[in-house]
Amino acid sequence: MRYGFGIDVGGTTVKLAFFNEEGNLLNKWEIPTVTKNGGEAILPDIAAAIQTHMEKVEVSRDQIIGVGIGVPGPVDEHGIVNRCVNLGWGVFNIQDALSELTGFPVKAGNDANMAALGEYWKGGGQGCDNMVFATLGTGVGGGIVLNGKIIHGVHGAGGEIGHMVLNKNETERCRCGKYGCVEQYCSATGIVRIGERTLQRTTTPSILREIFPLTCKDIFDASASGDALADEILEQVYDYLGEFLANICCAVDPAAIVLGGGVSKASMPLLDGAKRYFTKYIFHAASDVRFALASLGNDAGTYGAFKLALTEFG
Amino acid sequence: MRYGFGIDVGGTTVKLAFFNEEGNLLNKWEIPTVTKNGGEAILPDIAAAIQTHMEKVEVSRDQIIGVGIGVPGPVDEHGIVNRCVNLGWGVFNIQDALSELTGFPVKAGNDANMAALGEYWKGGGQGCDNMVFATLGTGVGGGIVLNGKIIHGVHGAGGEIGHMVLNKNETERCRCGKYGCVEQYCSATGIVRIGERTLQRTTTPSILREIFPLTCKDIFDASASGDALADEILEQVYDYLGEFLANICCAVDPAAIVLGGGVSKASMPLLDGAKRYFTKYIFHAASDVRFALASLGNDAGTYGAFKLALTEFG
Repeated sequence: MRYGFGIDVGGTTVKLAFFNEEGNLLNKWEIPTVTKNGGEAILPDIAAAIQTHMEKVEVSRDQIIGVGIGVPGPVDEHGIVNRCVNLGWGVFNIQDALSELTGFPVKAGNDANMAALGEYWKGGGQGCDNMVFATLGTGVGGGIVLNGKIIHGVHGAGGEIGHMVLNKNETERCRCGKYGCVEQYCSATGIVRIGERTLQRTTTPSILREIFPLTCKDIFDASASGDALADEILEQVYDYLGEFLANICCAVDPAAIVLGGGVSKASMPLLDGAKRYFTKYIFHAASDVRFALASLGNDAGTYGAFKLALTEFG
Repeated sequence: MRYGFGIDVGGTTVKLAFFNEEGNLLNKWEIPTVTKNGGEAILPDIAAAIQTHMEKVEVSRDQIIGVGIGVPGPVDEHGIVNRCVNLGWGVFNIQDALSELTGFPVKAGNDANMAALGEYWKGGGQGCDNMVFATLGTGVGGGIVLNGKIIHGVHGAGGEIGHMVLNKNETERCRCGKYGCVEQYCSATGIVRIGERTLQRTTTPSILREIFPLTCKDIFDASASGDALADEILEQVYDYLGEFLANICCAVDPAAIVLGGGVSKASMPLLDGAKRYFTKYIFHAASDVRFALASLGNDAGTYGAFKLALTEFG
């Protein structure tokens, strides 16, 4: 049996996981992400964690297929990281750097793309070689898997679907500097924003009027308990979701859409709502798309990172 | 030297071309598309034309790599045509059918996708393994090339970018049955529609007010001669173009965008206008995209069809 590592670098912690070649997650653990001094300790810390783990398991170095790593920023097909603002990193080849530190072959990708690959391999998208993954969290990220491979993109920006434009007339600015991005309507933050706007615009009674600060979960909970204004808020969200997912599907025509991230905890109402508007906006020939929830939670990124290494070196 | 055929089936004529394996177009000709009786004569007519050509050239049958064919409708990866309304065709495997008639291996794809592949191989997208092609004609079609291969899509609807939704508030219906598709704003017909709406909405003097019926070319010509209202019309078009192209690029992050079809005869003003708004709407990491004009004209489809066969059988 052969083995490998999947690593998911976040702004506060680095998730590490040890897999066998069949994709069984054998061990997982976390270390803090030390971002001071331009994040110079991050890769040495990861290499040390890998080394410590190698000393604990009865696996020889030549049984290791390689290391996959996902990072919060664009990574091109050669492994060049193009600034990870949250980590303090500039521009460098992370594959070469981590390979030198560990002695193992390394393949790198964007974190949302790695999560997409993980969900395709072992999660909600299993069996669908062509799949769109959208992660609805604080922001909106995503990844597109075609013929079983992730679309990294020429600049490492493949699957940056959170910054597709949904509303040119938006007056507030997105974190990215543009106006009217998907993220401003379909992230947890975006849903709350739509909620607050709707509360201001209307006088309909609602339990949401008594909640400070309002959260995305409050809105879904209120809807589940029959609050009409919460429904009105969520209809707007589903409409935006259905529209942008349909637009992606017109371009790449996948078999499945998998929704993940904190917002996806809303589960079936979210899937049903998004699918209802998707059906309205999708081109008829591409309309037969399976909607599914992500199932790997916070492990999706490490699964995908290892899968990337497995595909490259396995 | 080996050879092959590229075929582009249209609603009124079938374009045929004979290539050598280096992609030099050696001969090209057309035959009528006979659509009566459910288009039953179309494939036999093509097979007869290929046979006649084989008798004229000094090439033996075993020097033929294969036949590529593009058709006006969805074709899945196995060669299943899923209704070509313009041809009268239902659902069948066109690869098997034409292969039986010709004795050559056959690979099929959607016509706009074949044009995209042609422009990638020998046209405006040469050298860009990751490319988005949009053909702005009576309608809007397109194709997406990633890693040198066309994205057919699971239902053969890959690259159907003309039916992405641009304006949910549109009150007129698109040919596809939906409202607010790209095609309603960025096709020649769509540009004239925006023109007529703008003429009605404003009282600005314009030479366009004296032209009946108004054409897309009239609007570009008027803009070139300094007509302010024509500029106002085209700004709206460029804005729509820039938005939908940016949205595709957020998803697949290509190196180049190639514009073809009748509207692209407007040339540099069209490219410059589209790029201006694209820059406004694109996610920063994916913004370095080359804009180019298609260069193969009506031959793009046969080039791409042959390239498809060459990749499959060559």
